Amino acid sequence: MKTKECKIPEATIKRLSTYINCLERLQVENHPVISSELLGEYCQVSPAQIRKDLSYFGEFGVRGVGYDTKKLEAEIKEILGLNNNWPTCVVGVGKLGLALLNFALFRKHGFSITAAFDSDPAKVGTELSAGITIQPTTEIEQTVTGKKILIGIITTPADAAQKVAEQLVAGGIQGLLNFAPTKVKVPEEITLRNVSITSELDNLAYLMTQKRRRS
Amino acid sequence: MKTKECKIPEATIKRLSTYINCLERLQVENHPVISSELLGEYCQVSPAQIRKDLSYFGEFGVRGVGYDTKKLEAEIKEILGLNNNWPTCVVGVGKLGLALLNFALFRKHGFSITAAFDSDPAKVGTELSAGITIQPTTEIEQTVTGKKILIGIITTPADAAQKVAEQLVAGGIQGLLNFAPTKVKVPEEITLRNVSITSELDNLAYLMTQKRRRS
Repeated sequence: MKTKECKIPEATIKRLSTYINCLERLQVENHPVISSELLGEYCQVSPAQIRKDLSYFGEFGVRGVGYDTKKLEAEIKEILGLNNNWPTCVVGVGKLGLALLNFALFRKHGFSITAAFDSDPAKVGTELSAGITIQPTTEIEQTVTGKKILIGIITTPADAAQKVAEQLVAGGIQGLLNFAPTKVKVPEEITLRNVSITSELDNLAYLMTQKRRRS
Repeated sequence: MKTKECKIPEATIKRLSTYINCLERLQVENHPVISSELLGEYCQVSPAQIRKDLSYFGEFGVRGVGYDTKKLEAEIKEILGLNNNWPTCVVGVGKLGLALLNFALFRKHGFSITAAFDSDPAKVGTELSAGITIQPTTEIEQTVTGKKILIGIITTPADAAQKVAEQLVAGGIQGLLNFAPTKVKVPEEITLRNVSITSELDNLAYLMTQKRRRS
């Protein structure tokens, strides 16, 4: 698969992720082949947008026939790097951490959560339904190294996030998804994404406010 | 406050949301005035980016002096429409729903969660720590209307999301934040944002894979 040498828009990557979920559902519903029109309807994306998104990465599907759902799913997973197994850990087993530990979709997308950490002695030692036992945060570095964990998900309060990030990096983590409502600093070679659920709600409020002001 | 008649990038709106959190922290830490350099350091955004983001909405701060942290926070909240109170409800009180019900930042940003719904009879009637009692999903429409709820957060499984969205819309909801791993269809006048936590992780994996392929 040849990738054109240009920057792929983040929105395209986000849609590719959606396409995977739709293609999985289509296979379950016994659609081995699908037109871009029907795929568009499933994903609520225009067929033209689907073709444009895929065109960044090469040629897919057969003109006049459509896409092989199983093959296209595998191809998109290959593009995103999801055919690898990504050993992942969660630091901060509060309500959000627990929710993420139980996300069935993570495993389907190649992320296997293999460790969970919390600083609360009352939580340490608890066996989670996922078959993982909560470890103290003092064991982060050693466990990340030992289990060759590549991705760390931070769901701690804001004031704990930076220290946790440093412990993960010391253990050899390569990517961080930070849900703590603060920015963390990590060396340049670490891939970092900050996720703010509050900012999603803020954005919704902004769009609603704009609509009101227009009407 | 005059808004320039141009499309504001989504990334700008996202950063404005971050600035609010930083400005709140700065006030707690007793900084009544701050330079764009220091604000940039707090938010991990370049001072030039901060100035550019704010320039969409008018003139802020005093050249050579900086920003009044309290005033700028209020101004950004005004831009985003967060000075309104946004009555909000959560449908689907699983682990993610519970996490969102307890997000302290939501209230700080103007979102007050005033109802929670679940279809599980075992959960209905449970009083949540937030002082809200879980209601059955059959009461969505009536409660949304009665409490004048404007925003609905959907954290149900995929197969329940469309029906829940329709019930919320029937009740008079104006905005929807959908966390269910499927798209929902709503009338055009409803503001809808789909949030996919899995796609954030997919994007991280993609960026890490790109780095690997380059090195």
